[in-house]
Amino acid sequence: MGKEKPGIPKGTRDFNPVEIARRDYIFETIKEVYRKHGFRPIETPAMENLSTLMGKYGEEGDRLIFRILNSGDFAGKVPDPLWQSKDPGALSAKICEKALRYDLTVPFARYVVQHQHEITFPFKRYQIQPVWRADRPQKGRYREFFQCDADVIGSDSLVNEAEFLQIIDTVFSNLGIRVVIKLNNRKILAGLAEFIGHADKMTAITTAIDKLDKIGLNGVILELREKGLDDVAVEKLMPVLKLEGSNQEKIDRLLDILKQTETGRKGIEEIAEVFGIISGTPLDCRLELDLTLARGLNYYTGAIIEVKALDVSIGSICGGGRYDDLTGIFGLKDVSGIGISFGADRIYDVMQALNIFPKTLGTFTRLMAVNFGRKERDYCLPFLQRLRDKGIGCEMYPDPVKMKKQMQYADKNNIPFVLMAGEEEMKKGVYSLKDMRNGEQEQLPPGEIEQIISVTE
Amino acid sequence: MGKEKPGIPKGTRDFNPVEIARRDYIFETIKEVYRKHGFRPIETPAMENLSTLMGKYGEEGDRLIFRILNSGDFAGKVPDPLWQSKDPGALSAKICEKALRYDLTVPFARYVVQHQHEITFPFKRYQIQPVWRADRPQKGRYREFFQCDADVIGSDSLVNEAEFLQIIDTVFSNLGIRVVIKLNNRKILAGLAEFIGHADKMTAITTAIDKLDKIGLNGVILELREKGLDDVAVEKLMPVLKLEGSNQEKIDRLLDILKQTETGRKGIEEIAEVFGIISGTPLDCRLELDLTLARGLNYYTGAIIEVKALDVSIGSICGGGRYDDLTGIFGLKDVSGIGISFGADRIYDVMQALNIFPKTLGTFTRLMAVNFGRKERDYCLPFLQRLRDKGIGCEMYPDPVKMKKQMQYADKNNIPFVLMAGEEEMKKGVYSLKDMRNGEQEQLPPGEIEQIISVTE
Repeated sequence: MGKEKPGIPKGTRDFNPVEIARRDYIFETIKEVYRKHGFRPIETPAMENLSTLMGKYGEEGDRLIFRILNSGDFAGKVPDPLWQSKDPGALSAKICEKALRYDLTVPFARYVVQHQHEITFPFKRYQIQPVWRADRPQKGRYREFFQCDADVIGSDSLVNEAEFLQIIDTVFSNLGIRVVIKLNNRKILAGLAEFIGHADKMTAITTAIDKLDKIGLNGVILELREKGLDDVAVEKLMPVLKLEGSNQEKIDRLLDILKQTETGRKGIEEIAEVFGIISGTPLDCRLELDLTLARGLNYYTGAIIEVKALDVSIGSICGGGRYDDLTGIFGLKDVSGIGISFGADRIYDVMQALNIFPKTLGTFTRLMAVNFGRKERDYCLPFLQRLRDKGIGCEMYPDPVKMKKQMQYADKNNIPFVLMAGEEEMKKGVYSLKDMRNGEQEQLPPGEIEQIISVTE
Repeated sequence: MGKEKPGIPKGTRDFNPVEIARRDYIFETIKEVYRKHGFRPIETPAMENLSTLMGKYGEEGDRLIFRILNSGDFAGKVPDPLWQSKDPGALSAKICEKALRYDLTVPFARYVVQHQHEITFPFKRYQIQPVWRADRPQKGRYREFFQCDADVIGSDSLVNEAEFLQIIDTVFSNLGIRVVIKLNNRKILAGLAEFIGHADKMTAITTAIDKLDKIGLNGVILELREKGLDDVAVEKLMPVLKLEGSNQEKIDRLLDILKQTETGRKGIEEIAEVFGIISGTPLDCRLELDLTLARGLNYYTGAIIEVKALDVSIGSICGGGRYDDLTGIFGLKDVSGIGISFGADRIYDVMQALNIFPKTLGTFTRLMAVNFGRKERDYCLPFLQRLRDKGIGCEMYPDPVKMKKQMQYADKNNIPFVLMAGEEEMKKGVYSLKDMRNGEQEQLPPGEIEQIISVTE
């Protein structure tokens, strides 16, 4: 075994204790809110059958799935013509039966179908696990990252939409991040496209409208024309492009414009009802009806949700929506669902940028005992164990090395108190306690020390 | 996308909410004790470079590593003669740069070397993450399972050995599992082999002694002869085979037998010192010097630790030891370390067999509100949100379906209280609260309900 230069695959990360503490803080905050709303955790294996994942994420997605090589004689079972072709796509399907989870949604759909007879519907589940994608790594984009999903499956009540808005609001309020939640509904967009006579161009129209801020009204009109919309269609769209005011004003105006299209009216009624339900428990954050929200238009069928941080420019930090046939691909039809996903990595970056992580995160050790030698050490150890029994984290420096080195250890690890005992302390039955933050030192009996160090500030 | 029969790769598992709650209980118990002793968490990526893992686990281990197929044109870069050979070993090294973590020890060694300039030594880290092995799946053995490791690296003080015994004792005491901790030291075994003139047969001697209970004294002697020990050697070993009594008696006797071998004496002194340190903070469980403990003899250099449950027969549920050159393979020499690992899956099985999981695990929802329709729902929602603000988990049944279905949902999900409100309750400003455990129902004001349901028993 030679000397190797240690490293990790590109796009992956090691997490040190401080990073773990911060990430756990985010995960725990999200989990706690999910739980308080009746969501229950599940976990699925890192590896799924390749056939479970293939064809669920589009052609590009298929390419980004990490495949796991079959064990044993993987090559021997491949027919010779295929082997000679060296065709990566066809070959990998033969030599890899398993693949790494690409998201949490497809494994969840697989889980629901597989365990449908043990599940009580509506099933409210949350799942916080890593996923893997062979994406080109870049700033803020990793090949291994965590998703924090929650879904309700088996209920088409709009109470669920309102509940997810409440959850998002509480999570970001608890984390201390100011956000705006944007809400849209695919049915409104479909109705709009139908209304102007271009039902087939829903996505093109939505993405054009999305550019209003960037390229102005004339720019949008130009783009719509390029996409094949005639004058009449553009003219009919003008009131929507100029939509302003409060959510209620927008809803009233849209209802007026779209009253003739059944889908559009349904979409607006749905949004109106969600706003109605949520009005009984007002949100801390801003909630905005935003027709330009085009996220996930190829799978969402109702509500579309997106969350942006107000004080850091970083894109969406949470998103979700309603889908009508998630489990159909696995043989369970007509089950409606709605879900959201928090982007933990971006939330981490936002909190880092705003410097709002609690300062005490990750400092479990309240006290380190200096090791002056066997006798002093054995005088301290039972006291440390007594502190642990009371729930206080503490440690004995293991080696009787130079005091300076031991103090550096306490300092580097942000340990607030240091315990010392020599001849004098042992004779008196006390310990010297040093407060590392102000350097003050005092001889104290055990009970008093316990009291002092258990006060976290 | 056709209908697919959903399933997962063999040897992997889905975990449902109850299982997650129980597993988390085990993980959290272990974590809490680690933290109280000053251990800090790290996490490493699921994927490591294949070169980091290869050659670290023996030939058999190399074969059991899950390899990840390179993305893109993996076949095009393989030289034609190699491609035609179809040799799985040589080919997989060419078409796979990455592999799934096989344990937490090698990634930890890689981490320490890679981050050595950011780390304050001694470095006390814990790590709880899944690992993957292409083992043949069987009862209790999985292809994806969690390890719960803690190691101290950069200190050869025996205080660490004592601390790990303390940790093991606290963890199993907190979990409610009665165990015996067995302690051995490779140096004693080496000294013993040297003493009887067969320094090269240490492992054979140890494994033969290990069978004393099964095959009796004569059986062991027979096996030792088969392994090539002569009469003199067997005769010299007899007092060790007949070793009995308390740990102190064993230590005294061994010291007498092995005083001529430097290694053996060192081993006994180490064990004696560990017993000495731990005597200041007595353990709840039994701690036993066991010379037959042969676990990990090819990498442990000092203490060897193994833990067995007393009330369930299942093999080792925790183990560890001291190793002297873990990081050498990655270029950092002369760093001593010691570590332990809890077997979460087996601990789970033990707790299941003993039926000692706390009954309330995983029941976060204290209350479900019945959905009688829009008006009643909107009367309940603000109260639910107020309960959540107070830290109480509760949920609104999303759809106004038949009461029976809603009550079944509460029942199946072990929700202890159900909230109901109709015309009468709304007029009075109260709610009807039903206790699901005894069926009693009462109209109560919000404040009283809050008090009743926040008492968890």
